Amino acid sequence: MRIISVKESTIPLGSDKENAAISFQAMTASAVVAEIETSRGRFKGLGFSSYGRYGHGGLLQERFIPRLLNITDEIIGETSIQQMANVWDVLMTNEKEGGHGERSGAVGVLETAIWDAVAKSEDLPLWALLERDVGHSGSNGLPAGKTAIYASGGHYRSGSSDAAEVEEEAKQGLDAGYGWFKLKVGGATQAIDMARIEAAVKAVGSPNLIAVDANCAYGEDQGATHLSEIDQIGLRWIEEPVNPLDYLALAGCCQSVKTPIATGENIFSQADSRNLLHYGGLRAGKDNLQMDFVLAYGLTEYLRMFVDAEALGWSRKDFMPHAGHQVALHAAAGLGLGGHETAAVLGGPFSGVSDDTMVEDGVASLGDAPGAGIENKPTLFRLFHGLL
Amino acid sequence: MRIISVKESTIPLGSDKENAAISFQAMTASAVVAEIETSRGRFKGLGFSSYGRYGHGGLLQERFIPRLLNITDEIIGETSIQQMANVWDVLMTNEKEGGHGERSGAVGVLETAIWDAVAKSEDLPLWALLERDVGHSGSNGLPAGKTAIYASGGHYRSGSSDAAEVEEEAKQGLDAGYGWFKLKVGGATQAIDMARIEAAVKAVGSPNLIAVDANCAYGEDQGATHLSEIDQIGLRWIEEPVNPLDYLALAGCCQSVKTPIATGENIFSQADSRNLLHYGGLRAGKDNLQMDFVLAYGLTEYLRMFVDAEALGWSRKDFMPHAGHQVALHAAAGLGLGGHETAAVLGGPFSGVSDDTMVEDGVASLGDAPGAGIENKPTLFRLFHGLL
Repeated sequence: MRIISVKESTIPLGSDKENAAISFQAMTASAVVAEIETSRGRFKGLGFSSYGRYGHGGLLQERFIPRLLNITDEIIGETSIQQMANVWDVLMTNEKEGGHGERSGAVGVLETAIWDAVAKSEDLPLWALLERDVGHSGSNGLPAGKTAIYASGGHYRSGSSDAAEVEEEAKQGLDAGYGWFKLKVGGATQAIDMARIEAAVKAVGSPNLIAVDANCAYGEDQGATHLSEIDQIGLRWIEEPVNPLDYLALAGCCQSVKTPIATGENIFSQADSRNLLHYGGLRAGKDNLQMDFVLAYGLTEYLRMFVDAEALGWSRKDFMPHAGHQVALHAAAGLGLGGHETAAVLGGPFSGVSDDTMVEDGVASLGDAPGAGIENKPTLFRLFHGLL
Repeated sequence: MRIISVKESTIPLGSDKENAAISFQAMTASAVVAEIETSRGRFKGLGFSSYGRYGHGGLLQERFIPRLLNITDEIIGETSIQQMANVWDVLMTNEKEGGHGERSGAVGVLETAIWDAVAKSEDLPLWALLERDVGHSGSNGLPAGKTAIYASGGHYRSGSSDAAEVEEEAKQGLDAGYGWFKLKVGGATQAIDMARIEAAVKAVGSPNLIAVDANCAYGEDQGATHLSEIDQIGLRWIEEPVNPLDYLALAGCCQSVKTPIATGENIFSQADSRNLLHYGGLRAGKDNLQMDFVLAYGLTEYLRMFVDAEALGWSRKDFMPHAGHQVALHAAAGLGLGGHETAAVLGGPFSGVSDDTMVEDGVASLGDAPGAGIENKPTLFRLFHGLL
């Protein structure tokens, strides 16, 4: 493979959504197009930032795109995995250990764009390339090309936090074929949050079909009390109860709460993932690992996280990446992960799945279009207009 | 305080130096000038990136400078600490938890520039402002305005790794008044490294006056054997033996090695610092904490690290910041830290101390010029030419 060109653009994502931690008014994302040449021709790969950590335009321009374009030799490798590991080494040339933030997202968006191009060069959807070259876990009860899928929403709106709105969203999500629904908590009073949760449970009929995302709100003050109250409901999981790096507090939560815990979306490297698994008190087979590889150095680093996790008794079905981008959908369906998150009803580039993906009875069935399918998601694809 | 303007510039640092981990050919740094207005007038604060993690131009322009300039209200606070904590909150508006790399350096260089301006507005050297508003530890055996100081060098040169050169550098360092000398290891064969260490010890007369920096080289393969061989020499410390986030491996080193361990330069937040102290096996009063606050969200975050460390039995004299910039010199002299690192003999903007700092018998005595003294360091100050 030769790298022919890389273009990037920063996309403003002005939104009135907010969660317990931040508002999204000034949020941005990066769109990347990387063109590669192989023996089969030239192929353009599309990459798009994950949600909530800003675009990476500066870092891409300063360091990561120049490094790729400086390589005039062919990037070799017997399989796509080895080839991409070599791409990864080029990207990380002269980068020091530690400090896994921001650059992990710049590398992630670029690396996943190149995976898209590689899949296209093999005339395979990304899920099928991953199944072929990495292998499917076989542990999630579904064949390759399918994945469990859930709807994520229930954000706080500026100036409103209406349980009726959450109820409607949860109902819409399940009506649309998603398996369960997730809403935000921790950003309002406990009374309001409990009303929101009750409304969601009422809409779907069972607490096991509702998960909540606290965005780190339960680390201090009344956190333990609120958590304990929510724990009584029997929800599917409680997500990010405390600061993602506060392993002591997380281990405390895991000990005191019987509901499964989900976390990992703000863990951006193999080194940090290892520490989370060693010190965070999480329980293999019960809890949920949500590392988001578009923010965390891409699929190459994600595969390394599996190796560590498997050595500690976890399986790939315990992984369920954050944020619902197309590459996560393909990774879930190709590698046999636990499921896929989708912002089902909110609209915009992070919402929904590509048009050739069928969602029914809690399962997404992916199509056969080569690559990761950004082209088949019009709200997202239009953001690449100036780059193609 | 009002923020009047902020300018930044990316400085290329082409250098033929290298350590065990990376070469510095393409390294960059950020120079920042932040002008503030107080009741006493307008003051320009200068900030400069720390070493080894690239400049932060993109992030500064994309997020952190606009946030500061958007604040038209006065930033208040009864002491400089409270005022700077409010500046910090502005900088970190709508930033999520976790992912402490890159942005921690962008915030750090900007925050320390503003500290420089605040000290100037009080007509005090930064060390005296810190002594007045934070307080001196009293635990390092020196009065405020003075600090232990050592010379750091012994890099590998491209195409050469000459023990005679290391010997000469170590000798020059101690002749120039520095208290001890540090050289790089782990980037050549063990035989070459042992010869380099022996040459350095020979130059200064005692192994206790020589420290070594492995830049994470001893985490794999022959690492344990090499480390054990070096441990026999009785050096002052062994720095960063393993990956900064590999707390298991670090704890193993601390158990197996009797030489003090130094680490922390690639730990960039209070959350990560806490984990290092909880899980890294480091020994309070023996080992050395080298967190570099210019890379780690600035002095405001550094003071938070002290609180955690003190709760675990550490004192401020166990802290010795990485990299030898002027703000670290002032922090060491004003807060009563364990010492100050200086690239004594290499030349260039990261080398030496400001002209009004006297270095004698292992102690640096700082002058009375207001601020952090970048203006009194000509090789560094000239890089600010276009910003003032």
